[in-house]
Amino acid sequence: MKAALVAGSPGGVRAVAQRRRTTRPGGDAVVEDVASLVDELRAASEHPVEAVGLVVPGIVDEATGTGVYSANLGWDDYPFRTEIAAATGLPAAFGHDVRAGGLAELRQGNARDLTSAVIMPIGTGIAAALVLDGRVSSAPGEIGHVDVGHGDPCGCGQTGCVEARASSAAIARRYVQRTNRQVNGAADVARLLTEGDADAAAVWREAVDALAKGILLIAALLGPQAVVLGGGLALAGPKLTDPLGGRLDELIAFHRRPELRLAALGDEAGCLGAALLAIDMLEDR
Amino acid sequence: MKAALVAGSPGGVRAVAQRRRTTRPGGDAVVEDVASLVDELRAASEHPVEAVGLVVPGIVDEATGTGVYSANLGWDDYPFRTEIAAATGLPAAFGHDVRAGGLAELRQGNARDLTSAVIMPIGTGIAAALVLDGRVSSAPGEIGHVDVGHGDPCGCGQTGCVEARASSAAIARRYVQRTNRQVNGAADVARLLTEGDADAAAVWREAVDALAKGILLIAALLGPQAVVLGGGLALAGPKLTDPLGGRLDELIAFHRRPELRLAALGDEAGCLGAALLAIDMLEDR
Repeated sequence: MKAALVAGSPGGVRAVAQRRRTTRPGGDAVVEDVASLVDELRAASEHPVEAVGLVVPGIVDEATGTGVYSANLGWDDYPFRTEIAAATGLPAAFGHDVRAGGLAELRQGNARDLTSAVIMPIGTGIAAALVLDGRVSSAPGEIGHVDVGHGDPCGCGQTGCVEARASSAAIARRYVQRTNRQVNGAADVARLLTEGDADAAAVWREAVDALAKGILLIAALLGPQAVVLGGGLALAGPKLTDPLGGRLDELIAFHRRPELRLAALGDEAGCLGAALLAIDMLEDR
Repeated sequence: MKAALVAGSPGGVRAVAQRRRTTRPGGDAVVEDVASLVDELRAASEHPVEAVGLVVPGIVDEATGTGVYSANLGWDDYPFRTEIAAATGLPAAFGHDVRAGGLAELRQGNARDLTSAVIMPIGTGIAAALVLDGRVSSAPGEIGHVDVGHGDPCGCGQTGCVEARASSAAIARRYVQRTNRQVNGAADVARLLTEGDADAAAVWREAVDALAKGILLIAALLGPQAVVLGGGLALAGPKLTDPLGGRLDELIAFHRRPELRLAALGDEAGCLGAALLAIDMLEDR
């Protein structure tokens, strides 16, 4: 759980104090922890606290302020917005973590010159915020769970999902399965790749291929100016974007080839986006 | 070329006079024919003509009023909006045929109760208008040219495209290739299917499979409430929607299953949508 006291305007915000906690599952536990983090952050700064923004993963209904479903965090139609407002006594905004991170990249990160973009954090899973006509869409953007034809099973019950080969978790897992050697995440596989390890190269190439095919679908349906890669895997930088751009060039026919960019805000994006949702809500009153 | 004199408001319009002509290729020829159709329609009615709306296929830039590219109709960055205004002396709106048809279905057709929908006409080709957060997005929506894994080549240069198996043209062509018997379009194949023709059943099943996989991608990325099927193939009605819904139920894992609907406006949708673009433009002044 990442929390920050954030100051700024709808055009841009910055964190002035931060806290982290291990997330306890369940909606009630999250609300309780948010309320105590608000107290802590309030005590830590001279800034007055005017509103709370909370963003969560899973299926989110922004219109009703509901956490519809999260397998990992264990809730089902939990009314976060009203519960957070009741627990903190503050106006509360509620949204989806990936879409909020995309909003932050759009307002103050590496998508701020764009009117159409797909902002795609790649970590344990892969999802995307879809920026269309200058706005972050409420669409689910589940690019991690589209079938790109490799046939491997995915935890979601489908086969061929982008996430099953290209998430940081999948890259590390597939390297271990292939070699029986332990690695400390996808960053290790990226390092081994640079050192000329043939297994790392194969796993990396298959990840890049799955990602390129996912981006190709995005290019056909949405035609974004750019795909902005974030999350842990984007720390690989050109080791990711160079082969990915090359594979995309090979595959693309007549669709507009989106520019590939790296996200600017790192793992702060969600926090900043949550604050932007709260500030937008205050402005709209 | 379908032309209509249309009366109404942004909430709904109706055609009061109509004309059809064979399209002559080239931007200049289209502008000339539009100007003469405007004169004819003006003469045919008591209604004053206040504006012109033109919609075309291919790649369209709505913001600049440009026909960016059409392989079939032979233009390249043609400034339709300014040329139509100059040739007719009327304010001109310009857009994309499929997106304009989607706008008409959203305002007064079978998507009018929806805030998210994919409106997909299936004819010679397959494209889609994407309705997100209550608006028709400017996204290209090229669902006909996403790879769903069947491996057949497509005229676009890719393989596995939805359009290569599921367009009306592909269904008719594939039946002829398989049987060496002539048919008069996909409607004939649908009729043969009802009569128990095994080849028609096989071609139809493969078309349905490709469409279901395309809709699955849409469900993952966009999560629409409904997919609204239009164009010639949708005239097959439940012969299309029943097996398509069944296949979608088999394939879908955790994404929201979009409702399948048939479009309401038939081949008038583009004309009505063009008029809605023109009326919206007049209202915005």
